Amino acid sequence: MLAPTKLALSGERFRVTYQIVGARNEALRKAEEICIEQTVEFPADLVPDDDIRAHVFGRIESVEQRDDRLFYVQISYAIETAGQEITQLLNVIFGNTSMQPDIQVADLALPASLLATYAGPRFGIPGLRALLGVYDRPLLCTAIKPIGLSAEALARMTGEFALGGIDLIKDDHGLADQVFAPYAERVKRCAEAVQEANQRTGRRSLYVANVTAPGRALWERAYLAKAAGAGGLLVAPGIVGYDRMQALADDPQLGLPILLHPALLGSFVAHPYTGMAHGVVFGLLGRLAGADVTIFPNFGGRFSFSREACLAIADAAKQPLGGLKPIFPAPAGGMRVERVDDMLAFYGVDAVLLIGGDLHRHPNGIYAASQRFLETVLAGAQRLGVEQGT
Amino acid sequence: MLAPTKLALSGERFRVTYQIVGARNEALRKAEEICIEQTVEFPADLVPDDDIRAHVFGRIESVEQRDDRLFYVQISYAIETAGQEITQLLNVIFGNTSMQPDIQVADLALPASLLATYAGPRFGIPGLRALLGVYDRPLLCTAIKPIGLSAEALARMTGEFALGGIDLIKDDHGLADQVFAPYAERVKRCAEAVQEANQRTGRRSLYVANVTAPGRALWERAYLAKAAGAGGLLVAPGIVGYDRMQALADDPQLGLPILLHPALLGSFVAHPYTGMAHGVVFGLLGRLAGADVTIFPNFGGRFSFSREACLAIADAAKQPLGGLKPIFPAPAGGMRVERVDDMLAFYGVDAVLLIGGDLHRHPNGIYAASQRFLETVLAGAQRLGVEQGT
Repeated sequence: MLAPTKLALSGERFRVTYQIVGARNEALRKAEEICIEQTVEFPADLVPDDDIRAHVFGRIESVEQRDDRLFYVQISYAIETAGQEITQLLNVIFGNTSMQPDIQVADLALPASLLATYAGPRFGIPGLRALLGVYDRPLLCTAIKPIGLSAEALARMTGEFALGGIDLIKDDHGLADQVFAPYAERVKRCAEAVQEANQRTGRRSLYVANVTAPGRALWERAYLAKAAGAGGLLVAPGIVGYDRMQALADDPQLGLPILLHPALLGSFVAHPYTGMAHGVVFGLLGRLAGADVTIFPNFGGRFSFSREACLAIADAAKQPLGGLKPIFPAPAGGMRVERVDDMLAFYGVDAVLLIGGDLHRHPNGIYAASQRFLETVLAGAQRLGVEQGT
Repeated sequence: MLAPTKLALSGERFRVTYQIVGARNEALRKAEEICIEQTVEFPADLVPDDDIRAHVFGRIESVEQRDDRLFYVQISYAIETAGQEITQLLNVIFGNTSMQPDIQVADLALPASLLATYAGPRFGIPGLRALLGVYDRPLLCTAIKPIGLSAEALARMTGEFALGGIDLIKDDHGLADQVFAPYAERVKRCAEAVQEANQRTGRRSLYVANVTAPGRALWERAYLAKAAGAGGLLVAPGIVGYDRMQALADDPQLGLPILLHPALLGSFVAHPYTGMAHGVVFGLLGRLAGADVTIFPNFGGRFSFSREACLAIADAAKQPLGGLKPIFPAPAGGMRVERVDDMLAFYGVDAVLLIGGDLHRHPNGIYAASQRFLETVLAGAQRLGVEQGT
């Protein structure tokens, strides 16, 4: 038995809703185990009747039965258990319990006191719109690719996209620092190509450099991108951690918009009874960690996310969250210009529409394809505005 | 259609075995899609008959049918697609395909040329044994906890464990930089407690500090640990990325053993048809990224890993892998001293046996519990040696 511990805590708690599969008694037993596993990870019977037991242990706040074998259990944790660090917040939410079967993080409710310790997105929807000078339509995004092309070829492509009217021209997430198109050369050429195009069009398109890279190279590439005149950074938090996306977003010397790429995050949402819910992974955590745009595979494309999952992501991206700015959902993954109206109706104008490969199919090339994309979005946004009486 | 591209590649390729669920034609279609998705992510019909098509596209090397609806498809990729970066290697292996249902990374085969670009574990089994001066038995490990105790209380606990004979005394992964036991104070006190104990016992126990922390704080904590005299670092690559574990291992100014903690990695292995196999997540990738010890929940404990999964991890930890040192599997998660003989028989002497909460149950305290743990391991290892005629 431990000696009794006295603690001075704020009394503020954050809440995690776990979806638990099992009969009622089994689900409740699992919930009680989560309360211990995610906090003290220590035999409960060896903790005296002290402040650790009263406040540090997770606490079951509510139990909602969805069907015979499906329960939603809300557990609260003292905000002090997570400190003010997203790494430890993730750890308390799901660290060890990620290794238990049939438990999913369904939702997350963070009190204002905890949210206040996160700066969140530097730009968000209003900031990115102001940066681009685009207020009344979804933003247009594409990716330069494929891997294997030279930096010169990719830069040429970047320039044509910018001339054609794409707002955000990002590295494909597979472009890192390979021999084909080394990072430093690619970023310099692509940023220049966009700047030249902007001078001709009068628009403010941005080139977004992929800085998903090992160790300190992530920072070197981010500063190189800034110095080269790139207008944003692409990061895959599934590979480098949400905390590094946050650090990039928070860095005042960089001050660049952040696009979240979903690479490797799929395993969290690959199964309905494990991992974490789509809205948590791509929406809430992405936003907490400073993404201005969250990219995810849209329903009806090359991937298998459902309409409901996509809606949950968009909701989490935009719903009130303390003082944190709303961010753009960016449905992607095999989208085509023909889907623009669908996406507009579903996501509204506050979305980034990301079309990649399809823009290469236009018989007159990617400049013409980009123009058509822009015209389609402008017409669709206008129609939607008329329908909604704005 | 793209213009034809000419490339100068090494011809070296690495191989990923994907487990794919579906009827044969469906599985083969998915495999062909993986070849594109994980490399060019570009409409294949728009790539001419050039070097990108011939060498950059993934290539199906073999198809093995396990049952009516289960296939193992080996796909090879040019090593140049991954550059020399573990972040991009992860991306090529599973980045976007992690978002497809019913596909699992079952295995990974990296050629010597690619392995040569990874330093791997700095110590591995031989190095950590030399550091501790322990050659003929499993290493003993425990965790200081629970969260809520003061740095002073945790340091007292650390000292008792060291006096009792525990080799590796690590922070619980839930100890970060909370108000209860701030990092800097905790690490200083705990490192001192172990050093004092070592002077009395003549042993070389190590205090292992948890440096899983956001952004640059990870590095500040690692250097603080080094300066304070900590003997190792605990990292959760599921939270901060495999690449940062690698950067910590590779850093010559730190030069400390690395213990991999499995927090948040569970979602990769939570379902048999999604994510990545246990041996890949905890064994191969951990070792590639420089872990000297890989901690995972043993079968028959508080978690649900199977015997087969644990064996796969242990195999991946120790089997030949280019010039990379073998590393210690560290079965954990609700282990008790009564399980020592089982674990010895299953894992052999080259294992780290991690017992946490159970050491607090001994009627005479954790010093006595540690002594009993050590005696049990010594007796078991001797018995095993006699049985094996060594």
